[in-house]
Amino acid sequence: MTITGATRLLAIIGDPVAPLRSPAVFNAAFERLGHDMAFVAFQIKAGDLECAWPAFVAMANLDGLVITMPHKEAVLPLLAALGPTAQLTHSVNTIRRRADGAFEGDMFDGEGFRDGLERAGHPPRGKRILQVGCGAAGTAIACALARAGAATLTLYDSAAARLEALTALLHAHFPETKVQAGHPDPRGFDIVVNATPLGLRPGDPMSIDASLLSPSQIVADVIPNPEVTPLIAAARAIGCATTTGRDMHEGQARLAAAYLGIKGWDV
Amino acid sequence: MTITGATRLLAIIGDPVAPLRSPAVFNAAFERLGHDMAFVAFQIKAGDLECAWPAFVAMANLDGLVITMPHKEAVLPLLAALGPTAQLTHSVNTIRRRADGAFEGDMFDGEGFRDGLERAGHPPRGKRILQVGCGAAGTAIACALARAGAATLTLYDSAAARLEALTALLHAHFPETKVQAGHPDPRGFDIVVNATPLGLRPGDPMSIDASLLSPSQIVADVIPNPEVTPLIAAARAIGCATTTGRDMHEGQARLAAAYLGIKGWDV
Repeated sequence: MTITGATRLLAIIGDPVAPLRSPAVFNAAFERLGHDMAFVAFQIKAGDLECAWPAFVAMANLDGLVITMPHKEAVLPLLAALGPTAQLTHSVNTIRRRADGAFEGDMFDGEGFRDGLERAGHPPRGKRILQVGCGAAGTAIACALARAGAATLTLYDSAAARLEALTALLHAHFPETKVQAGHPDPRGFDIVVNATPLGLRPGDPMSIDASLLSPSQIVADVIPNPEVTPLIAAARAIGCATTTGRDMHEGQARLAAAYLGIKGWDV
Repeated sequence: MTITGATRLLAIIGDPVAPLRSPAVFNAAFERLGHDMAFVAFQIKAGDLECAWPAFVAMANLDGLVITMPHKEAVLPLLAALGPTAQLTHSVNTIRRRADGAFEGDMFDGEGFRDGLERAGHPPRGKRILQVGCGAAGTAIACALARAGAATLTLYDSAAARLEALTALLHAHFPETKVQAGHPDPRGFDIVVNATPLGLRPGDPMSIDASLLSPSQIVADVIPNPEVTPLIAAARAIGCATTTGRDMHEGQARLAAAYLGIKGWDV
């Protein structure tokens, strides 16, 4: 991979950026595919996005952006147009340049999770799902699971307002999925999802009572690093099938690449 | 070279960017030296620099910038501090981040030219020099040649105002070098310099009457691409020693790297 003045740029905007996996994943794909493109990180802290934005619009060799914490919601008013999932979830993770030079964005975190689950052999259609965590990631994931035809979606969040807002959103847009509030008790579910940040830091408690899991259940986590969270480790010890935050990240990257028009990613 | 989220960034700002050599030169050095750094181009057109600037200040993983056409003068009011050559020439080509997060810049185009000349075995000290072209690059080069102890500096530019301005600047700051206006006739000089853009485009006339060169003279050109301009080709045919825009660019890169604190560049 040789970056020259002619190399087209993509970037991920976030803070912190050092732990992000997207640059390595995208650059490895560009090298494999022979695309003269480079993917770098722009470390922009919360509150600086709006003042920095005109530069991204002005950079004529910047073809797209991936947006991560803490900017997924703040970026919305800066875009010329929003895709359907961005409109639904009020958050954006991928932005591309239109022919007129303006940026439009959509949200693929939830569909990336769903894609990772399906590629691991666990389509959510018709399944009874427990999801713990109703923040930005949880909202995107719950919408994707409902869109994919989950039979029931039982939600829990320690913040009641978030839980109620997501429940109302799902009731309004996905009437065919039975959505209800519940508890972090995995008994009776086909698929159990951690969509909280618990597991990111050493010593974090588990968001779900893993001692109540049984081997026929599927356990999915959103934490990419460490890939094997305490929840994933406990689930594997019991004999559950698992999908990790890495699987979700691969799905996000795949869908972002398709939205950005990167040819050959998944052939 | 693997770019990750932890890779530190440097960038060149200009328009156009596709022909620029700096990204390939810097990235090859980073790979050779084992530095986790990447050098990319930001294509920003004239007039967009000021609105884009806050992003570069905000990008916490961006350690420095190289500035090229058309921004070398426009960037001055955006910087927190100017080095001595930037103050003298009212132009900047390299910017680094200070400990307080603000940017400071200096100008190494002229010193890069001088460095290239010296490394080719032609120190300007005590020499009689003809320089054609008194624009931004010519100003920086003439200052560097005078600072390095050129005995006489004879200048020509088709725009009389530029010629007069540079002559006045040199008189004021380098009284030990004899500076005068002249003609693009190389007879009687030790070193002959093209600092005009002539030679960049196919069919350009030569800025200097090459038929009047003699083999003992040294001919230097600022055009990096094509490396062998009609002037360089004519000088070589006559038997003159030559230095090219590539030699100048290597000197600029070497001095920019030193200013940016990149370790091991020239060992």
